[in-house]
Amino acid sequence: MNDTAILPSYLVGSWQSGTGDGAEVKDAVTGETVCRVSSAGLDIAAAVEHARTVGAPALAALTFHERAGIVKQLALALSERKAELYELSARAGATARDAGVDVDGGFGTALVFSSLARKGLPDATVVAEDEFIGLGKEGSFGGRHLLTTPRGGVAVQINAFNFPVWGMLEKLAPALIAGVPNIVKPATPTAYIAQRAVEIMLESGALPEGALQLVCGSIPGLFDQLGGQDHVGFTGSAATAARLRGDAAVTQRSLHLNVEADSLNASVLGPDATPDSPEFGLFVKGLVTEMTVKAGQKCTAIRRALVPAAQLEAVTEAASAALGKVVVGAPGAEGVRMGALVGTEQRDDVRAAADRLAAAGRLVFGDPQQVAVVGADADRGAFLSPLLISADPQQVAPHEVEAFGPVSTLLPYADPADVVPILARGQGSLAGSVVSHDPDFVREVVLGAASHHGRILVLDRDCAAESTGHGIPMPQLVHGGPGRAGGGEEEGGLRAVHAHLHRTAVQGSPTALAMLAGEDVPA
Amino acid sequence: MNDTAILPSYLVGSWQSGTGDGAEVKDAVTGETVCRVSSAGLDIAAAVEHARTVGAPALAALTFHERAGIVKQLALALSERKAELYELSARAGATARDAGVDVDGGFGTALVFSSLARKGLPDATVVAEDEFIGLGKEGSFGGRHLLTTPRGGVAVQINAFNFPVWGMLEKLAPALIAGVPNIVKPATPTAYIAQRAVEIMLESGALPEGALQLVCGSIPGLFDQLGGQDHVGFTGSAATAARLRGDAAVTQRSLHLNVEADSLNASVLGPDATPDSPEFGLFVKGLVTEMTVKAGQKCTAIRRALVPAAQLEAVTEAASAALGKVVVGAPGAEGVRMGALVGTEQRDDVRAAADRLAAAGRLVFGDPQQVAVVGADADRGAFLSPLLISADPQQVAPHEVEAFGPVSTLLPYADPADVVPILARGQGSLAGSVVSHDPDFVREVVLGAASHHGRILVLDRDCAAESTGHGIPMPQLVHGGPGRAGGGEEEGGLRAVHAHLHRTAVQGSPTALAMLAGEDVPA
Repeated sequence: MNDTAILPSYLVGSWQSGTGDGAEVKDAVTGETVCRVSSAGLDIAAAVEHARTVGAPALAALTFHERAGIVKQLALALSERKAELYELSARAGATARDAGVDVDGGFGTALVFSSLARKGLPDATVVAEDEFIGLGKEGSFGGRHLLTTPRGGVAVQINAFNFPVWGMLEKLAPALIAGVPNIVKPATPTAYIAQRAVEIMLESGALPEGALQLVCGSIPGLFDQLGGQDHVGFTGSAATAARLRGDAAVTQRSLHLNVEADSLNASVLGPDATPDSPEFGLFVKGLVTEMTVKAGQKCTAIRRALVPAAQLEAVTEAASAALGKVVVGAPGAEGVRMGALVGTEQRDDVRAAADRLAAAGRLVFGDPQQVAVVGADADRGAFLSPLLISADPQQVAPHEVEAFGPVSTLLPYADPADVVPILARGQGSLAGSVVSHDPDFVREVVLGAASHHGRILVLDRDCAAESTGHGIPMPQLVHGGPGRAGGGEEEGGLRAVHAHLHRTAVQGSPTALAMLAGEDVPA
Repeated sequence: MNDTAILPSYLVGSWQSGTGDGAEVKDAVTGETVCRVSSAGLDIAAAVEHARTVGAPALAALTFHERAGIVKQLALALSERKAELYELSARAGATARDAGVDVDGGFGTALVFSSLARKGLPDATVVAEDEFIGLGKEGSFGGRHLLTTPRGGVAVQINAFNFPVWGMLEKLAPALIAGVPNIVKPATPTAYIAQRAVEIMLESGALPEGALQLVCGSIPGLFDQLGGQDHVGFTGSAATAARLRGDAAVTQRSLHLNVEADSLNASVLGPDATPDSPEFGLFVKGLVTEMTVKAGQKCTAIRRALVPAAQLEAVTEAASAALGKVVVGAPGAEGVRMGALVGTEQRDDVRAAADRLAAAGRLVFGDPQQVAVVGADADRGAFLSPLLISADPQQVAPHEVEAFGPVSTLLPYADPADVVPILARGQGSLAGSVVSHDPDFVREVVLGAASHHGRILVLDRDCAAESTGHGIPMPQLVHGGPGRAGGGEEEGGLRAVHAHLHRTAVQGSPTALAMLAGEDVPA
């Protein structure tokens, strides 16, 4: 028997704790136990039924604008109490900057969705996607497409550990606006942050009962309850994604499953960039930022850094110099710019992956086994030095091995025509960037590599001052990627809401279709 | 050794025949052997490679308008030689009316896609889906969404036996316009019709080499060649769909797989309709049409006919009277309005399914074992009487058993509020119809059942003269359905082309984004 409390879950209108010892979650910095996580004994089928029969009708009774108003209240509640979330985030190794990306990024995203919904959706429950499409010569018959909320449908969100707040909010906000009740399953290592965020949202009083439930721990049997009116948003490993996609809920009952999985994102320095050009500095700064923010634990972080062969030495020097100034240690301690990984297991996984990458080339910055740490015990906390590797792009590992930490690989290219094929070797990525001021190169690479990417940033002197950077998904733009990245699509403005709605072609007279679309019926 | 020739396939630029005895395909009317189908010994991996390396670059070099022009030429070639296809269709049991739905429906659909593409897509290779979305206060940074052709991607089309021409064309036309090369795999029972259509299209000379290949027979190992840049369009059984969805190409490599599977489509007569109202007659006519066109072998045919309990007897009488006038027999024979099923195996499957339905209620028209046949031998051909069953909507079978032939079940409802829950028991359908002139009933049923349907027709006196009917998918409107129907979406105008393109969010300065979108760069 262990005396650390089980992290509570919220099901069927009450906070409940799973039984048994559960999984221990340790402080990333001190190694102390933070909580234990268990869903044993929780009635998950009852939670699904509650969402269908209580949450769904309550949300269905509201308009898109009313639901957007709820999302705004949730975001404001989180904003007001963000200090609590920052404090918990520090225990997961996150600096204030890291916590800002997750927490402020989370409620900020919800606010954007709320605003887009009020501007772009009707104050109604049905979206008429198009105007009357005539299907006859006299105009007495035609069709339109309506988007409606799935009848009794449930959204299940399976989130990754690296963004317990943003990852939840970017999925939750569009689902709520669409009128779909949610069951959130956070990743165990940071479940205590997500749990607090859910607590804050429930305490806001903005949500109708049944609209938001939380299961901390595993979700055995949940998929058995799901079918064609339901939606699962999954962010995590490709291996888990493959298992979920093979579930009968998907293969036999056409459950909607959106996957965001692994990604070997690349940033490309253009052949026009020399050390004295603005783009050279922007490239190096972007690389170092992506390696160190959240200790590189971002699904969009730069894993492959393509540089013109002629600039390899200069980039290596400049990046190494910048990485050398990054102070690693306890979040909040003097001068610390990079915190800990989420746990020692993850650190060990990253070390092993970095070893595989280094074996395909050579380590040019950092030591996988040693790091100077400020304000914490390097043996107890999950600390790791930034690690920069240099390798031949013809090697396999740089395009296959995702070291989910402060690790990146420099890949020199000899000919600009090689860049697109090298990018394609990633087999599908969430985010790419091209750092160049040469329009021909930018066009060739972006259009050539577009179908391998969910998002591509063109970074240059013209946009750098306002650029949000390589690694930051924006709620207005799609987030996801083909192939290895999971083939899914999240965010993208109102596309994220539409993804939860069902499209139906309706056919009939102009009068009948206008009536269904909620418009004034033509005379 | 059998002396009937193996139906040839077209791979890597030449017609080739599989080896071995293959599967025998019989004439649906006479039982004579039409051909044998085998893909044994064909190099399917070479066909995929040919599509990627020869077909894809050739199509990628053309604009959307140029590709739309090719599709128009293909359609016109099919139109000119449609008599050949009608003649072959008769061997599959299709009357001239049935062949028209498939053949004219096929090239007509291709013409609509060609026209929509020339009107709605740029004469270029990239679609800019939206305008500049500002992401900074100064306007120097923002995003847009571009749609591009997958790099080296291949479209594989696995078609059902009932629409060898339309089913191929509605998939082929959007893929070609999107710039994606195609490998078509027709269903064995009607592969000889699809093969002739492919031959006609190739002989038109309109297609670049590698843009269209044909595999008659099974496709072992094909999925091993496919990944995240590829697209499979599947129409067929839920069991096969489940197997394909569980393939590693889908679960691990994020292959795009669009499924159209089983469907228990419903038509609903409104409570306002009495025998003297126009809607009563429209409902009965629609039911009889859907039962008899293509001998009910339509994925959109009406399987469940919901009628107000008070009208059950009147509908039964009227429908039975109309069905009694349907002459069954050899296509082209005197007075024949309904032909044969595609084969005796299918006939036996339909008989078995009809028995299960009848066991859940009672047969009110037709005899599963006997039918009067004109111009053919009822013992050798795959003939079946139209079969109308009447059952309680609380029974399970009417909502679960798809008799893929001239079979439908009348289900009386007592209360209009019961209609939506009864429809939902189909667990997702391709097509529904509401035959009513009561706006309140129409609104309640259509909006309540929308998320269970891909398409819903509101049929009434105002649109009947021009209505295309319950069972006809239109290229301008989405075709597909949630849940049991497979959860996919085809057609829908340019959505069908977009489904083959990849969406990428691009970020950068307004100048860079305009350049990528192919627009004049702002000064």
